[in-house]
Amino acid sequence: MDLNGIYQSIQDDLSQARESLRSIIKVDFPWLSEQLGYVVGGGGKGIRPALTLLSGKLYQYNLKYLLPMAVSVELMHTATLIHDDAIDKSTSRRGRATIYKLWGEEPAVLLGDYLFAKAGEFVSDTHCLRVIKLYSQTLATISSGELIQFFSAYNLKQTREQYFKKISGKTASLFALATESGAILSEAPEESVKILREYGHYLGIAFQIVDDILDFIGTEEELGKPVGSDLAQGTLTLPAMLLLERYPEDNPVKRLFENRDDQDNIKQAIELIRNSPIVDDCYTVAAEYKARACQNLKDLPENNSRQALLGLAEYVVARKN
Amino acid sequence: MDLNGIYQSIQDDLSQARESLRSIIKVDFPWLSEQLGYVVGGGGKGIRPALTLLSGKLYQYNLKYLLPMAVSVELMHTATLIHDDAIDKSTSRRGRATIYKLWGEEPAVLLGDYLFAKAGEFVSDTHCLRVIKLYSQTLATISSGELIQFFSAYNLKQTREQYFKKISGKTASLFALATESGAILSEAPEESVKILREYGHYLGIAFQIVDDILDFIGTEEELGKPVGSDLAQGTLTLPAMLLLERYPEDNPVKRLFENRDDQDNIKQAIELIRNSPIVDDCYTVAAEYKARACQNLKDLPENNSRQALLGLAEYVVARKN
Repeated sequence: MDLNGIYQSIQDDLSQARESLRSIIKVDFPWLSEQLGYVVGGGGKGIRPALTLLSGKLYQYNLKYLLPMAVSVELMHTATLIHDDAIDKSTSRRGRATIYKLWGEEPAVLLGDYLFAKAGEFVSDTHCLRVIKLYSQTLATISSGELIQFFSAYNLKQTREQYFKKISGKTASLFALATESGAILSEAPEESVKILREYGHYLGIAFQIVDDILDFIGTEEELGKPVGSDLAQGTLTLPAMLLLERYPEDNPVKRLFENRDDQDNIKQAIELIRNSPIVDDCYTVAAEYKARACQNLKDLPENNSRQALLGLAEYVVARKN
Repeated sequence: MDLNGIYQSIQDDLSQARESLRSIIKVDFPWLSEQLGYVVGGGGKGIRPALTLLSGKLYQYNLKYLLPMAVSVELMHTATLIHDDAIDKSTSRRGRATIYKLWGEEPAVLLGDYLFAKAGEFVSDTHCLRVIKLYSQTLATISSGELIQFFSAYNLKQTREQYFKKISGKTASLFALATESGAILSEAPEESVKILREYGHYLGIAFQIVDDILDFIGTEEELGKPVGSDLAQGTLTLPAMLLLERYPEDNPVKRLFENRDDQDNIKQAIELIRNSPIVDDCYTVAAEYKARACQNLKDLPENNSRQALLGLAEYVVARKN
């Protein structure tokens, strides 16, 4: 099923969330307004706000509180991307020039800070102290996940455990915030809050594994950024780890990490991974996490939303970008 | 009066706030812990947390909520400094190497994000939605103030109004948050909340003007960073603006902004400003804002705290670093 189909039951509310997101453009400074317009005009897939709305829709659906939360998770996600791009000096994302590329590193840092602040304003409009605290804790988890990634760059001796810890921090924590907060704000029973948090967490892990696979097997057009970006940043992801396990001696990843200038190794790694069972192996791992995400959904109320959450899980592992 | 004297009535609570601040060091990752230890070991003057505690002490002093707020304003301040240093590529602050200098730009960005998150966690411990929202609004104001500064760098055509708008955003807003939140958390009457917010705001303006003066007349030892840093970043501050007004034609600031490589102009500007009435003129403006800050304090309860706020205002304009 495509995203529009999955989002059907929350289509109008998702539009409202997008409208709310666009409202941040209205500021006194024309150039800030211009930058914000560019930022919110990027057209992401809206998975995180959808997770909040769908989780909420299982219980007491109160848009007054769910909408600002949905906007908040999207803003937090956008802010982290802007900081990531500044850090990685990435020039394109989603097929467009990054803020870093357009305005430079300094405005990218400050604009990210500004968006974190706006995300915080929206989250305070939920009037829910538990969710507000979760928001800040999640931001701390994401930043430390990114720090782990930065300090482990070009390190060949990373375990799978470390990989899962890293993607759990930088990606899954925000998915879990999106679902958990939706559940809390809709007064779901604690058992359901837990099921939805775990769904979000495992779905986030699956999502990131697929992201890491696509970075090797996608096309630049599909990805909206160069293929092999992770390796170019020195980030060891699951496919590269499996490649290292398969060819421990003579390996392009090993050569690249030992001599960062030799970018030919990226192409070789991509070729080797594409022509090996590694891609399938990684998809198997992603599918395991998808299954884990969905395993307890059966205990939630049976309705359109639950169906959509199951559909979203299928989409996350099947997507091409 | 020195700061210890001014802080006397809140000395123990300020120590508790410092202890609380140091608690963030306890994390699972040794290198993150090391970086956080360095960050909180920097020994700032603690003016912002003191403002929160002193404002609170005028009314229902509840440390359970005031302490996390005090820690939060200090953390937010620290995070903005770390991002500023990364943006300005500053290598020293408070006589120590900056995070940027020690670990590089990328960890500085992420560590700043992490501290914003921790600040948010502390502020959520105030359990006060009004203060929580103020916190996020202030962070947005600070970031946009910094963005204004960035985009107006090396621009000779800045008005005083723009200067005050800039320092109001980047500095005074946090001072105002510190006092206003202390008042709100202590259940001060609305009239007093307003007086304390204005005190914080005007004190912050005075503080920044003095900072901008010291950047020209201080020594590197006193400042803990190179003299003339603002000009080196292309930041036009009040003393430099007055110098431009005084010598509109042949002026070292003008020459520097037109040819950034000719750093000799910084030395010439420093000399010219030191040997002119500009310094006194700037101090007069700072004193006006100090007076504005204090003008309504007489309407607050008369006690040690009110006296300390008056003393702090004197300190802010008299300080050498």
